[in-house]
Amino acid sequence: MRKIFIIGIGAGNPDYMTVQAIGALNKVDVFFIPDKGAEKAALRQLRTEICARFIKDRAYRFVEVQVPRRGEDFSDYKANVLEWHAAIEANYTRLLREDVGENECAGFLVWGDPALYDSTLRIVERIHAQAEMAFDYEVIPGISAIQALAARHRVPLNRIGESVHITTGRKLTEGASNDGGSVVVLLDGEQAFTKLAGDLQIYWGAYLGTDEEVLVAGRLSEVASDIAAIRAERRARNGWIMDSYLIRKPET
Amino acid sequence: MRKIFIIGIGAGNPDYMTVQAIGALNKVDVFFIPDKGAEKAALRQLRTEICARFIKDRAYRFVEVQVPRRGEDFSDYKANVLEWHAAIEANYTRLLREDVGENECAGFLVWGDPALYDSTLRIVERIHAQAEMAFDYEVIPGISAIQALAARHRVPLNRIGESVHITTGRKLTEGASNDGGSVVVLLDGEQAFTKLAGDLQIYWGAYLGTDEEVLVAGRLSEVASDIAAIRAERRARNGWIMDSYLIRKPET
Repeated sequence: MRKIFIIGIGAGNPDYMTVQAIGALNKVDVFFIPDKGAEKAALRQLRTEICARFIKDRAYRFVEVQVPRRGEDFSDYKANVLEWHAAIEANYTRLLREDVGENECAGFLVWGDPALYDSTLRIVERIHAQAEMAFDYEVIPGISAIQALAARHRVPLNRIGESVHITTGRKLTEGASNDGGSVVVLLDGEQAFTKLAGDLQIYWGAYLGTDEEVLVAGRLSEVASDIAAIRAERRARNGWIMDSYLIRKPET
Repeated sequence: MRKIFIIGIGAGNPDYMTVQAIGALNKVDVFFIPDKGAEKAALRQLRTEICARFIKDRAYRFVEVQVPRRGEDFSDYKANVLEWHAAIEANYTRLLREDVGENECAGFLVWGDPALYDSTLRIVERIHAQAEMAFDYEVIPGISAIQALAARHRVPLNRIGESVHITTGRKLTEGASNDGGSVVVLLDGEQAFTKLAGDLQIYWGAYLGTDEEVLVAGRLSEVASDIAAIRAERRARNGWIMDSYLIRKPET
């Protein structure tokens, strides 16, 4: 029976790989590498580096997956994403049938943790539910950008006994809040932090775990424009950016 | 100068150790092992196993830390915790001075991730701020119980484009909710899930990553009493339990 490993490779630093993830890498025959957007080259390099460094005495191959473009109609966010996932699913299904032998293992190398804001697990689950092809699948957790952010800033994600709200830039703009608790924001292409009012502390980071890593912390009112400027400059220079931040009221 | 590593060892499975955490282990001269509560033996065994397996050709020693009992006055939760942390801080400061040489490294092995619901980082930060003793410190992220839970259930933590709220049993009882998003609950000694109303899906797990691991998933109304029974039985048998769950409305 075919087997799929959905492997969290951590947020940028190859040293974030777990022993479990390395074990899974060493069982994979075929890695599916998505051809995706502007960050493609950097992500591809990380994946290649991880395989070269951690796979021992074993043949493996890469298969490039064409990731379809998302539709331009964003009026219904979820419908747009679901339609996009259906197109990816069709590609994955075809590749599984054509490029993975009946007793082989396929692997997806997911940046960060596969359970957080990544669609691979959801799509594999849909293929599995359709039962056209028998296969087993396993999820290997990885260090997420959230954890890398907290570790690099040396700051706890939660206040004592308080909650942590993980959300997106889009939701934050719509008014997500956490009543004095901590808020972690991912996927913020619109720099929602620049629109927040009130006395807030921010811990921001981009390209976490990589040589390009940049960290800024401080009162939001004092550092927001710096972060926006650094973000624009790095994004222009590299052609892509992946950033996240923790935001909350200052400790009283 | 002294250095402290606060090392996330992951949630139960030694294979959750990262390459970075293994590297840090191999720099530590003195491990501080807290003498803490009923789970002491199991946690101690995991820590000892991790050191024995991953530290190569290097001498290291364990120092047991007496963890003071928490006060009995829970009327002000945060004040109670702060008072308790101050007592732990005094112990750590003394041990750092007496048991760690000026050019040695000390290590704390933290279950899960040091940034999530663990006090070690907060206490070390306080000692550092007091500047009585010069030292550097570094935080190494680890796979949290939340990620182990999601991976073992093979379920994404977030719905598409939606938020994830991480909270405690105490806060859930007080009425934490996430407007249709996903809620992850840790530190729920009072089984707050049994008091929730409405049509909800739960993914529950205890002793994640260990040989004792137990997982239950289903409609809350159908599995809540099973989970409560399993929880009581395992807790009685083992003398301790560490569990967590993901809860949200079923997919429409």
